[in-house]
Amino acid sequence: MSIDTLLYWVGMAAVAVNALTGVLDSGRKQMDLIGALLVGVATALGGGTIRDLLLDRNIFWVVDQAYLMTALGAGLATFFVARSLPVPPKLFLIPDAIGLALFTILGTQIALQWHVPWLAASLMGVITGVVGGVLRDILCNDVPLVFLQGELYATAAWIGALSLIGLQEIGIPPVAAAWAGMAIVLGLRLLAMRFHITLPAFGQQKPS
Amino acid sequence: MSIDTLLYWVGMAAVAVNALTGVLDSGRKQMDLIGALLVGVATALGGGTIRDLLLDRNIFWVVDQAYLMTALGAGLATFFVARSLPVPPKLFLIPDAIGLALFTILGTQIALQWHVPWLAASLMGVITGVVGGVLRDILCNDVPLVFLQGELYATAAWIGALSLIGLQEIGIPPVAAAWAGMAIVLGLRLLAMRFHITLPAFGQQKPS
Amino acid sequence: MSIDTLLYWVGMAAVAVNALTGVLDSGRKQMDLIGALLVGVATALGGGTIRDLLLDRNIFWVVDQAYLMTALGAGLATFFVARSLPVPPKLFLIPDAIGLALFTILGTQIALQWHVPWLAASLMGVITGVVGGVLRDILCNDVPLVFLQGELYATAAWIGALSLIGLQEIGIPPVAAAWAGMAIVLGLRLLAMRFHITLPAFGQQKPS
Repeated sequence: MSIDTLLYWVGMAAVAVNALTGVLDSGRKQMDLIGALLVGVATALGGGTIRDLLLDRNIFWVVDQAYLMTALGAGLATFFVARSLPVPPKLFLIPDAIGLALFTILGTQIALQWHVPWLAASLMGVITGVVGGVLRDILCNDVPLVFLQGELYATAAWIGALSLIGLQEIGIPPVAAAWAGMAIVLGLRLLAMRFHITLPAFGQQKPS
Repeated sequence: MSIDTLLYWVGMAAVAVNALTGVLDSGRKQMDLIGALLVGVATALGGGTIRDLLLDRNIFWVVDQAYLMTALGAGLATFFVARSLPVPPKLFLIPDAIGLALFTILGTQIALQWHVPWLAASLMGVITGVVGGVLRDILCNDVPLVFLQGELYATAAWIGALSLIGLQEIGIPPVAAAWAGMAIVLGLRLLAMRFHITLPAFGQQKPS
Repeated sequence: MSIDTLLYWVGMAAVAVNALTGVLDSGRKQMDLIGALLVGVATALGGGTIRDLLLDRNIFWVVDQAYLMTALGAGLATFFVARSLPVPPKLFLIPDAIGLALFTILGTQIALQWHVPWLAASLMGVITGVVGGVLRDILCNDVPLVFLQGELYATAAWIGALSLIGLQEIGIPPVAAAWAGMAIVLGLRLLAMRFHITLPAFGQQKPS
């Protein structure tokens, strides 16, 4: 299997996982089937859509609607399974972290290919990785989770995107840099979850 | 009157009705005149704007600012009438259903003309039909009504969009398919309101 | 210093001020460093980004990432200063009003250069001026402040944008019209804050 084929299927899996988290989240708001599916689709495809709009590319799920079918299929399955079985949300933290790593690195590399300067390219990576979840929380009328103090979500994405760019800059070939970048996002996120590593927060400190 | 002229004026009427619902909704949040007008404009023009961005078309209200004038005029009239007269919101459910049918079918047909594949084209129709109301609810800091369990709103739009595409696929001419699609959206929505038809919901079930 | 150079630096200052208000606002929601920075960046760059998307221009902060660096630098400084020093939010009302004036007039002039018709161009100016703050409030899960009854925010922007267009229409050179437009936005906003001038509101009137 070529590297492109591998990335394509891992990307598709990340779309499915994101659709799943969107549908699960919508369960807290008494949405109906189509409402939940649309929130799932927005979660799965939102980050890449904003990236493509900002780069003036053709939207990825319009060019290849297999992404849309995957998001709908995964959302539909989640809806019916989760109505009968209680699904522990923790089950999806690891697939979600893999999706974050993949979306972030894919988004950064696409931006670099479009000759976006380095800092803007790293932000495109973060946008691709986290905007789906931000849209999900806006549509569910919550403060976006990824902005709240927590276990290095957007932070892990940003450090990974910057690492990828730095590694390419010093001459590491793009494919190796991409794997390293994904490993950094995933590793930071998993370490932060395991050891409850957080960034300093701003705002209402808890009384001590 | 040609079919294009008819559609143009029905579309303009749908813009006016959407601006009206946006302004009425903003009344629950103590917005001022310009705030209410901007929410009305976002409700009226938001769905078509997102569709045009996703298709990389020129934005419809930039090309023909009569849409913008209509949205502002209808919003302004609503603001002043509704401050003195209590307006029963139910009065607008039928114009709103007509607007949903028209926006959805217009959006789907534009996407098909731009060679968007079928499932993505049906989603473009749904986006054109419902995103205005979603923006309105986000700007008013509510969970979008169209996602909540209710009387087949996004669902009616999606079934109508898919029907239009299916009918064109089996050889029905586009104009006839468009009328059939609009009739399906409108009929489903009105039947669902009349008989309280809902989709299965996900999430907090009411105690039985 | 040429007029273009002056405008460039004033624009950069407006980006910094907007990033600052975004970060300060995020303090009410227990966001972490990166969450606060991303809200600051969205506040600073959001309005111009939507304008560029609607006009199908290259996004300004992708073309010149100095804007992004300024937003991040200002956001970072705000985060660390505001954690140790209590910052009276009133301190920023005047820089914020200058930013509103500048963004609105810049947005309107860019839209006119792209041959957008007058009413749509004035809305592009308003969008450039106020959408950053709207995004900030959506991301913080609040009703957008600029829509609420208050001291002529979007209203001042809109009147200034329309004045600029009217002045150019009667033959005033663009640079003079731009300065007049900015003075009108800034003057209206400052007068409204000083004398508590508000527009009529719609909705829950306070009991008298």
